[in-house]
Order: sequence, then C-alpha cells, then structure tokens
Amino acid sequence: MQLSSCYLFKGLSELQQERLIGISREAMFKKGRWLYRENEPGERIFILKKGAVELLTKIGETVELPITIARSPGDCFGSPALIPPYLYSLSARCVEDSTLLAIGRSDLQKLIQQDHELGRAVLSNIAEHFLGRLKETRQELKIHFKTLFKSIHQ
Amino acid sequence: MQLSSCYLFKGLSELQQERLIGISREAMFKKGRWLYRENEPGERIFILKKGAVELLTKIGETVELPITIARSPGDCFGSPALIPPYLYSLSARCVEDSTLLAIGRSDLQKLIQQDHELGRAVLSNIAEHFLGRLKETRQELKIHFKTLFKSIHQ
Repeated sequence: MQLSSCYLFKGLSELQQERLIGISREAMFKKGRWLYRENEPGERIFILKKGAVELLTKIGETVELPITIARSPGDCFGSPALIPPYLYSLSARCVEDSTLLAIGRSDLQKLIQQDHELGRAVLSNIAEHFLGRLKETRQELKIHFKTLFKSIHQ
Repeated sequence: MQLSSCYLFKGLSELQQERLIGISREAMFKKGRWLYRENEPGERIFILKKGAVELLTKIGETVELPITIARSPGDCFGSPALIPPYLYSLSARCVEDSTLLAIGRSDLQKLIQQDHELGRAVLSNIAEHFLGRLKETRQELKIHFKTLFKSIHQ
C-alpha cells in the first residue's frame, strides 16, 4: 500500500512516506468495534489496510446517519484530530474485521513542524478534503430544498 | 482594523500582518456588485473594511440560497482561492457600498512558501474554517432529516 493513495499524504515523497510509516502502528480490530465517537478528542488518524470502516453521525439519540464507508486500502479518516478544536467530527465503526495503520496526533504534529514541505502538503490536503465534503453536503441540502419547494408549489 | 480578526490570519505576529497589508490592495465596490461567482477560478481573497457582502449559492437556475453575510470589519471570504482546485465555492455580492482589502492568490501563495510559520497557520486556519462550515451544514441537513422522519411517522 502506498501512503500517497491516502488523501492526507497526497504529493509526498517516498522518503516522507517512509517517515510516516516509521511513526505509524498497525493494529487489527473486530467487526462492530468503535474506533472513536463524534466529539471525542482526536488522538490519532487511521489508514485502512484491510477491511471496512463506516463513518457516521447521529440524528438525536437513536438514528444513525451514515456519511461514508472506507473500504479501499489507503482510505484514511480521523483528520479532524489535526485541526483545532482537535475533536473527531464523526464516529467510526468497523463493519468488517479490519487492519489499520494508526498515527498519533502529537507524532504527526511534530513531523508537520519539522518538515515544512510535508506540513504545507498535509494541511492543504486536509483543507481540500473538508472543502470537498462541504460542497457535497451543500449539494445534499440543495436537494432537500428543491423537494421542499416542489411540495409547496404542487 | 487588525488583520488577526480575520479567521485566515488568526495567530499571526504583527510583522506577519504588516507583510500581508503590504501585498493587499484596497478598493471600493458599489451595492449590487458581484465580486465573484461560484466555480470561477479564485484569483484573490477579500477582507471587509466597511460595508456588507453576501455569500450565496444557487439552487437550479433561479433560486438563491444565502449562506452568510460578512458585515464586521475583518470578516474575510474567498479562501477556496488558496486550496485545490482553486475555484470559489460560493458567489459574493455587495449588499451595501463596501470597502475591501484584496490579496492576490499568487502573492499570498508566495508568502505561504517563504514564511513556514505563516504558511502552517494560514492553511490550518482555512482547514478549521471549512471543518466548522461542514459541521454547520451537516446540522442543517439533520434538521431536514428530522422533519422528514416526523412527517413519515405522523
């Protein structure tokens, strides 16, 4: 698995990717295991090696709203751990037995401080990712508004 | 007006703010003037000195969906100009006669490259801003889903 297939590490050199592998830890998680919950302090980011992890949010206390499923090797999640207020914005649950690479927030922050090029690339990649998600979410909202307008004008 | 009241430039030193002022240009725009439209290449970011600018998107060809109004000195907008694919994600229209500072994308990118600390701060601020907007937009979407559930279960 190339780390550069993860949106976070797009554009990094082989050497920079090796440094990231050096600070990562591999771990296996059973199907059904929660990796983190929405609004918890974000202590690590994850990269999928094998398996599938669902990202979701809750509507009220009971209804789950699925946002996306990471299922391709290199898919990564948990990047709000790197950005103030350093809280996960979604919950993550394994929907299959999964093998993941985890990188601790403080280790990655040190690298971002030390290697300016890596720092700029990672932060720009995160901003690009959030902007993309924001555009998608606005599109969904527009679809709801359209439906609403139609039902009013019928 | 302190530039640090603009979310983009939060955490910068006086000297860094002075450098930014040095590459900015002040301009006045009449009420009703479009500063940019959604999906256009983002050539500059803007900081409000006086007046009010509405940010909006379109639903279909005709309906406008207002997103926010910049009306406090230091409010800034146009930051997608700094992030791939470098396209404005909303449209911006003056709703009052307005005085703005504009900073060209390539000038700001040069500063981000030269001053590593400034680069990290600006990119992290942008990511934080997009993440905040993403959370707000997801909340709005949840409200629509809730309304939908209620109407189904009534």
